[in-house]
Amino acid sequence: MASGTADVGLIGLAVMGQNLVLNMNDHGFKVAVFNRTVSKVDDFLNGEAKGTNIVGAHSLQEFCALLKRPRIIILLVKAGEAVDQFISMLVPFLSPGDLIVDGGNSHFLDTRRRTKEAEAKGLLFIGTGVSGGEEGARHGPSIMPGGSPAAWKLVKPIFQAISAKANGEPCCEWVGEDGAGHYVKMVHNGIEYGDMELICEAYNLLHRGLKLSNGDIADIFTQWNDGVLNSYLIEITANILKFKDTDGSDLVEKILDTAEQKGTGKWTAMSSLDLNVPVTLIAEAVFSRVLSSMKEERLNASKIFGSYSSDVVIHDKNAFVQDVHDALYASKVVSYAQGYMLLREAASHYGWNLNYGGIALMWRGGCIIRSVFLGQIRDAFLRTPNLSNLLLDDFFKDAVLKGERGWRNVVAQAAYMGIPCPAFSSSLAFFDGYRSERLPANLLQAQRDYFGAHTYERVDQPRGKYFHTDWTGSGGRVTSNAYKL
Amino acid sequence: MASGTADVGLIGLAVMGQNLVLNMNDHGFKVAVFNRTVSKVDDFLNGEAKGTNIVGAHSLQEFCALLKRPRIIILLVKAGEAVDQFISMLVPFLSPGDLIVDGGNSHFLDTRRRTKEAEAKGLLFIGTGVSGGEEGARHGPSIMPGGSPAAWKLVKPIFQAISAKANGEPCCEWVGEDGAGHYVKMVHNGIEYGDMELICEAYNLLHRGLKLSNGDIADIFTQWNDGVLNSYLIEITANILKFKDTDGSDLVEKILDTAEQKGTGKWTAMSSLDLNVPVTLIAEAVFSRVLSSMKEERLNASKIFGSYSSDVVIHDKNAFVQDVHDALYASKVVSYAQGYMLLREAASHYGWNLNYGGIALMWRGGCIIRSVFLGQIRDAFLRTPNLSNLLLDDFFKDAVLKGERGWRNVVAQAAYMGIPCPAFSSSLAFFDGYRSERLPANLLQAQRDYFGAHTYERVDQPRGKYFHTDWTGSGGRVTSNAYKL
Repeated sequence: MASGTADVGLIGLAVMGQNLVLNMNDHGFKVAVFNRTVSKVDDFLNGEAKGTNIVGAHSLQEFCALLKRPRIIILLVKAGEAVDQFISMLVPFLSPGDLIVDGGNSHFLDTRRRTKEAEAKGLLFIGTGVSGGEEGARHGPSIMPGGSPAAWKLVKPIFQAISAKANGEPCCEWVGEDGAGHYVKMVHNGIEYGDMELICEAYNLLHRGLKLSNGDIADIFTQWNDGVLNSYLIEITANILKFKDTDGSDLVEKILDTAEQKGTGKWTAMSSLDLNVPVTLIAEAVFSRVLSSMKEERLNASKIFGSYSSDVVIHDKNAFVQDVHDALYASKVVSYAQGYMLLREAASHYGWNLNYGGIALMWRGGCIIRSVFLGQIRDAFLRTPNLSNLLLDDFFKDAVLKGERGWRNVVAQAAYMGIPCPAFSSSLAFFDGYRSERLPANLLQAQRDYFGAHTYERVDQPRGKYFHTDWTGSGGRVTSNAYKL
Repeated sequence: MASGTADVGLIGLAVMGQNLVLNMNDHGFKVAVFNRTVSKVDDFLNGEAKGTNIVGAHSLQEFCALLKRPRIIILLVKAGEAVDQFISMLVPFLSPGDLIVDGGNSHFLDTRRRTKEAEAKGLLFIGTGVSGGEEGARHGPSIMPGGSPAAWKLVKPIFQAISAKANGEPCCEWVGEDGAGHYVKMVHNGIEYGDMELICEAYNLLHRGLKLSNGDIADIFTQWNDGVLNSYLIEITANILKFKDTDGSDLVEKILDTAEQKGTGKWTAMSSLDLNVPVTLIAEAVFSRVLSSMKEERLNASKIFGSYSSDVVIHDKNAFVQDVHDALYASKVVSYAQGYMLLREAASHYGWNLNYGGIALMWRGGCIIRSVFLGQIRDAFLRTPNLSNLLLDDFFKDAVLKGERGWRNVVAQAAYMGIPCPAFSSSLAFFDGYRSERLPANLLQAQRDYFGAHTYERVDQPRGKYFHTDWTGSGGRVTSNAYKL
């Protein structure tokens, strides 16, 4: 097929797609566009794209002919079947060495499969996370590409030009083979679920627990944003809490408390279960959204149970606000430590060579979880490239220990007050378990051996030596093998 | 093929298999056996099966010829490929209407597939949970069969004869179509994980928190076993804590604190994430096992962080023991309520017509989680067959409210003491969320609309009407569709 003059093509002109196209155009790249509903191409060319170098096509054949070779085609279509459909439709018009980039929120296992399939056809494939919402797409997203390693040099100049910058460095680096980019984006989204849940729990304690007004809480978040919690999500929380509805009242009070989700958070939690990594905070954050969405059932239960009449009175409100701050910060450290534990295990399991500091840098700017905090994670990996756990880095260790007293007080008082704080309490339980030389799992192993002859190891014997006890004096003839629970 | 005189055949002579065969033999059924390692057949016939009516075969062909028609063949082999392999090897020797029963811990989605495949070949298929460990298999397990409905009448006389009985009723009933039996068994195992975690947390609080001896704690569990917590797991916990090693010291102290697992607990948690049901307690129990297994890392962290020097002094130890009891009981109610929420959602999603009271009865006896408690669950469903949530049943509502004060105290004091109680605290947070008319998810929805134009619903507008706010005054042109996070 003939080759054209466009540097890159993009399919899928929803908000994110349009904004990415405009962003690439701003940086001097000639972009060709296509959309399944073809009228959207003309609308875009005659609208937002008017006066730019952007060119459009009304068929995939025409679209492919507009592109320089090797072709670079970015798909920004709904994750799932639509991606496979567009790949199938594109293939007849592609040449060996052409590259398809899937920029949607695809599941990393699909990306693994698609990379393999594309490479088998002589094509290159990238699955990339793109974070930052519509604003990010327009002015600088975080971009997390993985897939065919040979494809990186093709997109690097484009992606690093349009990506966000953190201290002058682009928030886009090569992540790794096949599904690695989408995996890292998935974990990013999971961490985002965690961050949002933590902020909601802090808000609930201040609003329902301390009975502070939204305005007062906005001021607290604004103040927090000047410190260690400095981040995009804290910043917008302050803005949201100040925002007035048309009638002058606080808009946030008018919003229904039923959280929605699109799946990447639960994918993260499911992957952590699958890979045996205790990512408790993200799992609790996902469940918390689910519980909030059961509004009718909660309403019914609230009538049946009545509200809990707590006799807790917080006398020193300022001190408690500081405790909530410390709980949020310490829990956040745990959440990122858990997220990085998951990345490490996934890298080992799926054969990816992940650059942990580079991932922090990619998240440092452009994306929803961007924060000063991520700069410190990057610093930790610069100090200790093979850091086994974030909690063991001196900076984060000190951060947690400094906040520990307040964190414990918040979890305890929330329990007394009847205010649900699953992420605060789950992360504290994780921390207390993680630092425990001894946990009560010895009893659990004894139970398993008692009822199922599952055997156990002993503290006074080498690891890998298994023992079985005839607990009841009536059995114990054979130890279990196929029937472990 | 010729037909024989055996009522039922069983393949797989590990402990569970042998014991089920002996159990069926005791109840007057003539059983034929086969094992991949054929020498085990002879060992069994000359050993435990000596003097019984049990017959053995040295090939699958010979095995199938020993069976009456329609044949009933129970597979008790390792879940996974081995099941598919045996099915393939059996099919050439089977006739239409013959039944294959998979009694292993297969994943319910595999059972769905296998039921369909077997039925397409004119065969019948059952996937059944069998619980109770080796003792249960020998003297009365809990049996949870699902699959081809036409197969139930074939196995009903056998299964109900050999199953455990609770107040004279067999702990075996038809569960539902295709994977329903294995699903119910999976949830049973998940609940078992939860029950064991709750007992371990209680033990840790009494042992590490109150510094009680194992003997004293054994007495406490024995006492608890006379009350509302009466159950097999509480009973064996008391026995374990009293058990002495050969040197006269407490054996439980010698057991390594690294819990193992075989997957059904994490399958339950993954299914709950997949189906959007907040089964937080089981998820925390799974993660807790995982964390315990990271022994080296914990050891290292315990040195770096040092142990937490709590200034908590529990003056009234007896009162705190009662609080721990109440926390365990209330958390257990939450855990079963969550498990039943999951069953209800799975039934709706997979098209099963589950009998919730019948499931409680199946679990009431024979299996690891057997308890008085399950009788009360059955009663609750007899009172209110379409009970939407266990927590809303008067008995369980009162149980939770009665224990509430102690539960809160335990979660709070555990936080202050630095003793991890993820299941106690997660279930309390769930309860506090479940009974909350209003949760802070309004802020979360505002955040999602702020950064991603994901829209929100309003408290003063009908459900299903979505709103978007231009929070920054700079965007909001288009709301998001394909790019919801």
